[in-house]
Amino acid sequence: MRKELKSFDRILMGPGPSNIHPRVLKAMTTTLVSHFDPYIFEILDEISEMLRMVFETRNEFTIAISGSGSAGMEASLCNVVEPGDEIIVAPVGTFGERMAEMVKRLGGRPMIVKQERGGIIQPDRIEKALEESNAKAVAIVHVETSSCVMQPLERIGEIIRNHGALLIVDAVASLGGAPVKVDEWNIDICYSGTQKCLNAPPGLAPITINKRAWEAIENRRSPIPSFYFDATLLKKYWSEERLYHHTVPVSTAFALYEALRIIEEEGLESRFEKHRLAGEAVRKSLEAMGLELFAQKGYEAPVITSVKIPEGIDDAKFRSIMLNKENIEIGGGLDVLKGKIWRVGHMGYGAEPEFVLPTLAAMEKTLIYMGYHVEPGTAVAVASRVLEKPK
Amino acid sequence: MRKELKSFDRILMGPGPSNIHPRVLKAMTTTLVSHFDPYIFEILDEISEMLRMVFETRNEFTIAISGSGSAGMEASLCNVVEPGDEIIVAPVGTFGERMAEMVKRLGGRPMIVKQERGGIIQPDRIEKALEESNAKAVAIVHVETSSCVMQPLERIGEIIRNHGALLIVDAVASLGGAPVKVDEWNIDICYSGTQKCLNAPPGLAPITINKRAWEAIENRRSPIPSFYFDATLLKKYWSEERLYHHTVPVSTAFALYEALRIIEEEGLESRFEKHRLAGEAVRKSLEAMGLELFAQKGYEAPVITSVKIPEGIDDAKFRSIMLNKENIEIGGGLDVLKGKIWRVGHMGYGAEPEFVLPTLAAMEKTLIYMGYHVEPGTAVAVASRVLEKPK
Repeated sequence: MRKELKSFDRILMGPGPSNIHPRVLKAMTTTLVSHFDPYIFEILDEISEMLRMVFETRNEFTIAISGSGSAGMEASLCNVVEPGDEIIVAPVGTFGERMAEMVKRLGGRPMIVKQERGGIIQPDRIEKALEESNAKAVAIVHVETSSCVMQPLERIGEIIRNHGALLIVDAVASLGGAPVKVDEWNIDICYSGTQKCLNAPPGLAPITINKRAWEAIENRRSPIPSFYFDATLLKKYWSEERLYHHTVPVSTAFALYEALRIIEEEGLESRFEKHRLAGEAVRKSLEAMGLELFAQKGYEAPVITSVKIPEGIDDAKFRSIMLNKENIEIGGGLDVLKGKIWRVGHMGYGAEPEFVLPTLAAMEKTLIYMGYHVEPGTAVAVASRVLEKPK
Repeated sequence: MRKELKSFDRILMGPGPSNIHPRVLKAMTTTLVSHFDPYIFEILDEISEMLRMVFETRNEFTIAISGSGSAGMEASLCNVVEPGDEIIVAPVGTFGERMAEMVKRLGGRPMIVKQERGGIIQPDRIEKALEESNAKAVAIVHVETSSCVMQPLERIGEIIRNHGALLIVDAVASLGGAPVKVDEWNIDICYSGTQKCLNAPPGLAPITINKRAWEAIENRRSPIPSFYFDATLLKKYWSEERLYHHTVPVSTAFALYEALRIIEEEGLESRFEKHRLAGEAVRKSLEAMGLELFAQKGYEAPVITSVKIPEGIDDAKFRSIMLNKENIEIGGGLDVLKGKIWRVGHMGYGAEPEFVLPTLAAMEKTLIYMGYHVEPGTAVAVASRVLEKPK
């Protein structure tokens, strides 16, 4: 006999999925309707409207792709990139490198402006690359979860707009946790995922495309290679035309609706402030325990923190104790950073003190258990002082 | 204020999504774990094992793609089709035509063996196409939901194997409701969706790939154009290597696990018999009401029935009354069949008499209300006689 499903009630403080609010979990028990039901069209319209709120955009085409954040990445690139196109990609970690990989598979020519993990890209390097190339677009990650830095985009957006190229931004980790000002920052295509700061289950990838990017899509020389991600077909389903394209994940859409409703009730500004404080609390607490932070100072993401694994502490053992004894997940390093850093997420619901404080306490306890020296109680004392600051 | 989500408890008797069992709905409230949690790996392994049971295959690579059935279609084609490849596509409806469209976008050359809607493809036509071309693969739909016919595959599979080509089969609508004997029928790649006869919510696309197809994938001349659907990368996540690729829709995976567990408890054979009976009951009942069936006699799908809309009955009005007054969804016609046929699904859980009988009763009632002449009680009387047959 196969086992019954089991709820572990874990505290998810890794790079995502993050914990979802009980209201969002309950939303998934809304009984199914079909992808052509008047009710799902109502819900999808409301999702579009609330996504415009979090993307801070007026773009009409603001929908959710039926897939993970990487599906959002592929959808963003495959609609624009054509064989032979020069695309500037500025990777500061795993996900920027993934963008370059996708550009290559699409027949594009990625022009790499690379930065070592932990740092950000200086705007003048993008400017130089634009001057030296014929780039159709620049693809960049806002919060690179692999290193936990946040790339400022305002100046870069200006430069790219002045050069007439498109700006494609990965906001998978930041959306809902830090400002993503699509219109103000001159972002032409922006995508995200549901399972990070939006606190919905994985399975949908919010995306917004402005008029400039639509012009590029409509003036393609070659067909869009993907049917599933073809924005012109998706538009016909998500707009009043309601033309069949594929079956959207209805239950996940219900969950996203509820998750966005929570963000709307909370208000973007207070949500950003909550993340800023959580980030500060986590960083100060980790430093007070004698650990060394990894991300470039001043550019630490407010939604996830990277910290170097102290010498003598076994990565896998530490995370396994955290998971199995403390029921808390934190993230390890990806590819070249594997075994070198931990990544502590504080995303949306997970940025609340009720999740942040037990996580730091458990990290301290586990470090002490593994022979690391730190005064018991340090982690929570330091973090509490930050989190209790009058707002 | 945005509205609270509402459960309509509709009876979903269209082409899918189908109703899901309360156990499957509850499975989605299993608290989230991450895509790297030991527990999700356990669940994914069990999903693979149970998918092998429904696909009747021993293929090691038997997983679920993170997307809808159309994502399964795109994944099946984009891993195999290369620019310039001749691919025989045998469309008998919308989904076969979609396969041809995808082949074209991938740079392949679709060789069309077409059949008017309602009919099936004769094996000798596939044989002729193979003889006249250099086809790498043949792509065909098992149950074409747009016309509701079921294409026999056994003989076609033999012919294709003898010619050394690959057979790619769309089993989106049939899997879990009718036999899909992947190994016995010489199917090399087969994909499905979760929201039809498997009775899980939409958002995952089961797929299985055998060794012959893997050889073709590994001997490609060009890179796989899609990163998201790259089977070689998906394999590394779904196998013991557990290499990160993308975040699987964890909650939907829990639901699929539970849905497959129900199928396993029920047993494939009794499940197929249930569908066969439901199909017979629906067809006889519709005919007894004086309606004309659409699919070629002898090849009617056991999971969904197409029926011509009687003269004088307004399609949109009929389905709207069914939905809003009776709370039952049936499907309309797709593209060229729009306004010409209705499609009544009886998929998995929806093939139970408790769903089939009220649907037929409501259709009869609505027809009478709209001025169509039929003796009240006919629909249920005829269907009941079939459904009460001793098994």
